[in-house]
Amino acid sequence: MRLYLYPGACSLADHIALIEAGLPYDLMPIDHAKQTQDGRDYLTVNPRGYVPALEVEDGTILTENLVILAYIADRSGALLPAGEFGRWRALEALSYMATTIHGNLGPFFKKAPDTEKDAARKALAKGFAVLDEQMGVQPFLLGRTMSIADPYLFWTVLATSRFDIAVPERLQAFFDRMSQEPSVLRALAEEGLSPSGR
Amino acid sequence: MRLYLYPGACSLADHIALIEAGLPYDLMPIDHAKQTQDGRDYLTVNPRGYVPALEVEDGTILTENLVILAYIADRSGALLPAGEFGRWRALEALSYMATTIHGNLGPFFKKAPDTEKDAARKALAKGFAVLDEQMGVQPFLLGRTMSIADPYLFWTVLATSRFDIAVPERLQAFFDRMSQEPSVLRALAEEGLSPSGR
Repeated sequence: MRLYLYPGACSLADHIALIEAGLPYDLMPIDHAKQTQDGRDYLTVNPRGYVPALEVEDGTILTENLVILAYIADRSGALLPAGEFGRWRALEALSYMATTIHGNLGPFFKKAPDTEKDAARKALAKGFAVLDEQMGVQPFLLGRTMSIADPYLFWTVLATSRFDIAVPERLQAFFDRMSQEPSVLRALAEEGLSPSGR
Repeated sequence: MRLYLYPGACSLADHIALIEAGLPYDLMPIDHAKQTQDGRDYLTVNPRGYVPALEVEDGTILTENLVILAYIADRSGALLPAGEFGRWRALEALSYMATTIHGNLGPFFKKAPDTEKDAARKALAKGFAVLDEQMGVQPFLLGRTMSIADPYLFWTVLATSRFDIAVPERLQAFFDRMSQEPSVLRALAEEGLSPSGR
């Protein structure tokens, strides 16, 4: 499988998940001009222009972070919480993060008026508080083992740190633990990023 | 199964999907004060406070629209596009709509400055153009039969119409067709809404 990514973007979550799941993959970085490293126009891969995209063996392209993460879990049988409803809980957490967290990071990725950033900061504080409560004393968001929700949560905290937005203590501790995981260190190194994700 | 809904809110999508899938259900409306119709505090059902929530037979509560729609498809074996990647395509469309469309409807549901609404209008126009292109000449977003993506798309166009935001012609025609579906007419009636969804 081939993962199209932009170094340090939310595609980092899929990259970590591929490593954790033990699936074979190669990476195809794209640049700011939306050119792939092998010189193609990325819009021919994903007409919507954003990362990540996952190309599977038969050439099918999957987009949307949540979908690619769910597909990685489905293909590998790994990275899902235990229990009959495990995969639905993972999808629930991903959907919440994609809308409430990632959605409110939007204003910080572009030129947005301060009023919009202030509203987003408030929504992020509320969203992170919900996730902090859900994490509780567990090592990972949904329990004792890593699920597809965790690499994405890791990335949201990483992205947030770039904009000087505080996150609750237990989520910061989770981020610090994740930063030590071999899969995370390997993914950061493969994307040419320092262990701090910068 | 029991669907917790607010009449006319995005829970309408799940309501339509339950009818289309032929699954047995009952409805539990909540009010603006987050009280359920049978007098309970809705926060004891979904601590995050929003609709929809789906209570399955063993009492498990599922939240997040995309998750509930995917669960309805999984339980019924209905409402998925054909092909090996059908369920991933449906999830892709739902994820896109939840973030790019529903996310940008946010400013219209609350008091937001005009600059924020203007930015949201632009993002909505772009997002709807993508969906319009995807719809093309098909009767439903992902092909010849209804999938879980369609009731949600129907709801986004309905919500958009309340804020006087134009949608492309093919999406409006889709909305008009969906408005005639018996499942949609029944869901609107059960939520106490007129056939125009108001």
